[in-house]
Amino acid sequence: MEYQRLLEQVHRQVSELIGQGEVASYIPALARVDGSQFGFALRCVDGQEASVGSADTAFSIQSMSKIFSLSLALQLLGEDLWSRIGREPSGDPFNSLVQLEHEHGRPRNPFINAGAIAVADRLVSHCVDAKQSIREMVSDLVGEPIDYDLEVAASEAAHGARNAATAHFMRSFGKLDNPVDVVLDVYFHQCALSLSCRQMASACGFLVNGGVNPRNGVEVLNKRQARRINSLMLTCGTYDVAGEFAFIIGLPCKSGVGGGILATVPHRMSLCVWSPALGPSGNSLAGTKALELFAAEAGVSVF
Amino acid sequence: MEYQRLLEQVHRQVSELIGQGEVASYIPALARVDGSQFGFALRCVDGQEASVGSADTAFSIQSMSKIFSLSLALQLLGEDLWSRIGREPSGDPFNSLVQLEHEHGRPRNPFINAGAIAVADRLVSHCVDAKQSIREMVSDLVGEPIDYDLEVAASEAAHGARNAATAHFMRSFGKLDNPVDVVLDVYFHQCALSLSCRQMASACGFLVNGGVNPRNGVEVLNKRQARRINSLMLTCGTYDVAGEFAFIIGLPCKSGVGGGILATVPHRMSLCVWSPALGPSGNSLAGTKALELFAAEAGVSVF
Amino acid sequence: MEYQRLLEQVHRQVSELIGQGEVASYIPALARVDGSQFGFALRCVDGQEASVGSADTAFSIQSMSKIFSLSLALQLLGEDLWSRIGREPSGDPFNSLVQLEHEHGRPRNPFINAGAIAVADRLVSHCVDAKQSIREMVSDLVGEPIDYDLEVAASEAAHGARNAATAHFMRSFGKLDNPVDVVLDVYFHQCALSLSCRQMASACGFLVNGGVNPRNGVEVLNKRQARRINSLMLTCGTYDVAGEFAFIIGLPCKSGVGGGILATVPHRMSLCVWSPALGPSGNSLAGTKALELFAAEAGVSVF
Amino acid sequence: MEYQRLLEQVHRQVSELIGQGEVASYIPALARVDGSQFGFALRCVDGQEASVGSADTAFSIQSMSKIFSLSLALQLLGEDLWSRIGREPSGDPFNSLVQLEHEHGRPRNPFINAGAIAVADRLVSHCVDAKQSIREMVSDLVGEPIDYDLEVAASEAAHGARNAATAHFMRSFGKLDNPVDVVLDVYFHQCALSLSCRQMASACGFLVNGGVNPRNGVEVLNKRQARRINSLMLTCGTYDVAGEFAFIIGLPCKSGVGGGILATVPHRMSLCVWSPALGPSGNSLAGTKALELFAAEAGVSVF
Repeated sequence: MEYQRLLEQVHRQVSELIGQGEVASYIPALARVDGSQFGFALRCVDGQEASVGSADTAFSIQSMSKIFSLSLALQLLGEDLWSRIGREPSGDPFNSLVQLEHEHGRPRNPFINAGAIAVADRLVSHCVDAKQSIREMVSDLVGEPIDYDLEVAASEAAHGARNAATAHFMRSFGKLDNPVDVVLDVYFHQCALSLSCRQMASACGFLVNGGVNPRNGVEVLNKRQARRINSLMLTCGTYDVAGEFAFIIGLPCKSGVGGGILATVPHRMSLCVWSPALGPSGNSLAGTKALELFAAEAGVSVF
Repeated sequence: MEYQRLLEQVHRQVSELIGQGEVASYIPALARVDGSQFGFALRCVDGQEASVGSADTAFSIQSMSKIFSLSLALQLLGEDLWSRIGREPSGDPFNSLVQLEHEHGRPRNPFINAGAIAVADRLVSHCVDAKQSIREMVSDLVGEPIDYDLEVAASEAAHGARNAATAHFMRSFGKLDNPVDVVLDVYFHQCALSLSCRQMASACGFLVNGGVNPRNGVEVLNKRQARRINSLMLTCGTYDVAGEFAFIIGLPCKSGVGGGILATVPHRMSLCVWSPALGPSGNSLAGTKALELFAAEAGVSVF
Repeated sequence: MEYQRLLEQVHRQVSELIGQGEVASYIPALARVDGSQFGFALRCVDGQEASVGSADTAFSIQSMSKIFSLSLALQLLGEDLWSRIGREPSGDPFNSLVQLEHEHGRPRNPFINAGAIAVADRLVSHCVDAKQSIREMVSDLVGEPIDYDLEVAASEAAHGARNAATAHFMRSFGKLDNPVDVVLDVYFHQCALSLSCRQMASACGFLVNGGVNPRNGVEVLNKRQARRINSLMLTCGTYDVAGEFAFIIGLPCKSGVGGGILATVPHRMSLCVWSPALGPSGNSLAGTKALELFAAEAGVSVF
Repeated sequence: MEYQRLLEQVHRQVSELIGQGEVASYIPALARVDGSQFGFALRCVDGQEASVGSADTAFSIQSMSKIFSLSLALQLLGEDLWSRIGREPSGDPFNSLVQLEHEHGRPRNPFINAGAIAVADRLVSHCVDAKQSIREMVSDLVGEPIDYDLEVAASEAAHGARNAATAHFMRSFGKLDNPVDVVLDVYFHQCALSLSCRQMASACGFLVNGGVNPRNGVEVLNKRQARRINSLMLTCGTYDVAGEFAFIIGLPCKSGVGGGILATVPHRMSLCVWSPALGPSGNSLAGTKALELFAAEAGVSVF
């Protein structure tokens, strides 16, 4: 089946799930999002595109932004980045501070909050203006200007006590070089980027094309770096259910509490699904099911 | 390149690594193994085989046995198994007991020791003679009689204080139904199974053939169960370096401190490499490199 | 007021509390004890005695036995004992295994279970028959034969999974020299000693008399050792409410889940109160109140 | 022996220890203090005073200030204070964040940093100007104006990453009502109070006089509150060696990394010793020995 018709079929199959679950409520700007929205877009390496539903509606990408900040940090630092950040799964969130203490302030991977904050600290050290650099990078990837949702960024800052605790804790181990408020300002802004499903799928084309943006041929990362991000997404990309995602979807995925999930079929296509109502694990409920159905029907699961 | 010649090329490429690292020394029976041995075998779904080095030398499969006990438990209990055992990565081993306490005695996954002990407990409850059942299952999978190395099993028992602590701890939460010594006796025996690379690769053919043993057409597990094991191997199969293995090899792997690593290329082939000298992460040093080279050259990495 | 009349007054004052709370129920032998019993006895250094209620009824002393095993270990090993066991409070029980892991199997103090098990291990190493030695010591202290309640000891063993986990865990760090089952057998027996309030108060006279049994002049410990035990009782003697006991009672205390509490007024008297129904902290509810009233009225609190 | 001659004797006995150990070095303002200084002062309830050495030299009281902030919080909130802060020993510092997580942001006691920060938060909520209120309270207790060492306070803030982590962490649990920077500003200032031994001993007279300042008859706390502080000092006042202090000194003590130790003999006298060089536990090395010798010779140990 061609992908457009497959997406339409998946859309129908998940229609009853859309709106089930709970929209993220820890900040007002996310809490008032309409949970019944759904969008799904994909972009193949060869340029073929398909989409259904609200695939052009911009939403808060939240933790999916960790793909971009990590990519930018790899551009700037290369393998040196890993002196500050590990690349292994982290166990349940309860243990995050225990693990940070045991490992002397070095986070387990760049997709847990501690790791993404450590990445943001690296960006602050290596960019003139880290927020500007992230925005430019994402805009370049998408091919059109992308901006921060400043209301969301301010909301994140106002409810960021645990992230602040994590950042100060890493700093107490000498693993954060810049002032915590500067680093968190970058982190909270990157979480507040607004993109549509179509834009996300397009922006992440480099992950499935050996690091090269398939839209314009620009090398974003080298092959090994692109592969590194895919493997990190599969093992660490979906909070405390990475193992479950590996099984039911079988693709590298990175989710966000805004309800988006970015998935990759290495060497073939990048996909983004979005539906704001979340299941118990903090991942989009309808979005997860849509990816599962798509991967099964398209036969693209890695297992 | 055909696989036989590819294995031979890989063998040459890793020749200088063979014997580097340290043979596991926590029990005498393993400590005196010659670290300079190396074997590598693969078996395709279509029956094609290839092997190099000491691929017919039996060695202690140790934690690779967790594949077999998990498969047997899934045969007997199906999805009920998961009420006692999780399916997510576990973070670093330091936290194993902290996590067990936080999660009330339910281990994170069946490939950490706590999880494999919980699986052994399920087998004791559902088999007349769990040790006999495991041995029969493995013998059936291989197609020839396999036996326990009783000296290794006795050695494991004599040095099993931490496993005993883990087992009693789970039992204190009501998550182990059988006496600890009975459960550990099963667990220590399964670790003491002796198979060659060729036998391991052959025995695990069902993992890459939708659960069906490609040698004789017998359904060992259903498709979903086989897929489950593959995804668990990728996310949790290699101690605290699952993320690194996902990146450098890009295949589901399950390693053992005896120096063996079982890998799968879903739908295509099962492989087993063995070299007893271990790297810092507790995985076979030459074996890991051999798998990396093979996967890259054969183009079978999932990323 | 003379002590006999003071005890009678206290008995009246707590009469409505007696039987409130819950009898320990984790083993059948304790669960069927009548919770409405109450006894209180004291013995001054000068030989003066007083008692009320069921002060001659033998009951299971449980964790109060840790005073005796610690004293015996100090007799046998002196300061060497502390190479295996710390002398500091331990925080909440939740953290016991975390702390044991962090401190490589050395328990924080001899009054938490891990510490008492480590003491028992030392006794096994230094006695021909540790159970016999403990029984003889207590019998000598009391001046009449004391025996184990074998039913209670068997019950403890049957429900001792967490203690077994703790013991194996210490052994995995090389901090337990003897087989776990041998050590736990000693530990479970010492918990199953049966003494009356009058016997306990009398047996612990050496703690308030510079280490010398005031009944017969025999030196049980030296002055510093006796002082050590008193200070440990004050800081670590009552599970997770040592701070609260220091405030409300202001005396060194060691409690047991059998409902007994042994208290000392250094240089003056030893006391034992008993009432089996426990408050939320696992200490005798009426017994705690009785000690508080007594210490306040007699003016013996250390604060 | 009268106290003045006893202090002189103690001073001679510890003379060789003075200067041994290491001056606290985590902030420059403390690192450059001359470690060879020593002062010791006491004040009896009846007004009798004695002192030796540099008893009139002001030094940074650091954690001894927790006595004052706790007293002020008890004045303002009474027992309500304890809804936010526990009263039990905390185990080793390694576990501080683990314990905070397990207990949902409620610190174990007011003498660990987390607890003192929670006290500071309460003061911010209940004072117009908490820093001013603390300074006034201490000035009133001493009977002369006391002030903050602003250089020390600034230094603390510049090196306060772990305290900031702790504060943000409590705030993430809703256990801190005020902005972290406001709360820490109070906390860092209270640590930067400068008093001499004579002033400290005098200021803490209320702790040994039923809550009433013996110098002027003003009730600072009620009897139970004063007793509460004494019992907290004995069980939690000296970092991770409270058990050891209870044994070797046998008095309620509160130490600071500036090298001061405040001790109380309930109902009789308050004492302050100071010598900046610290032993391995972070307590004044010569000061600890001086208190031990004094308590033994004066016969005032509670054990």
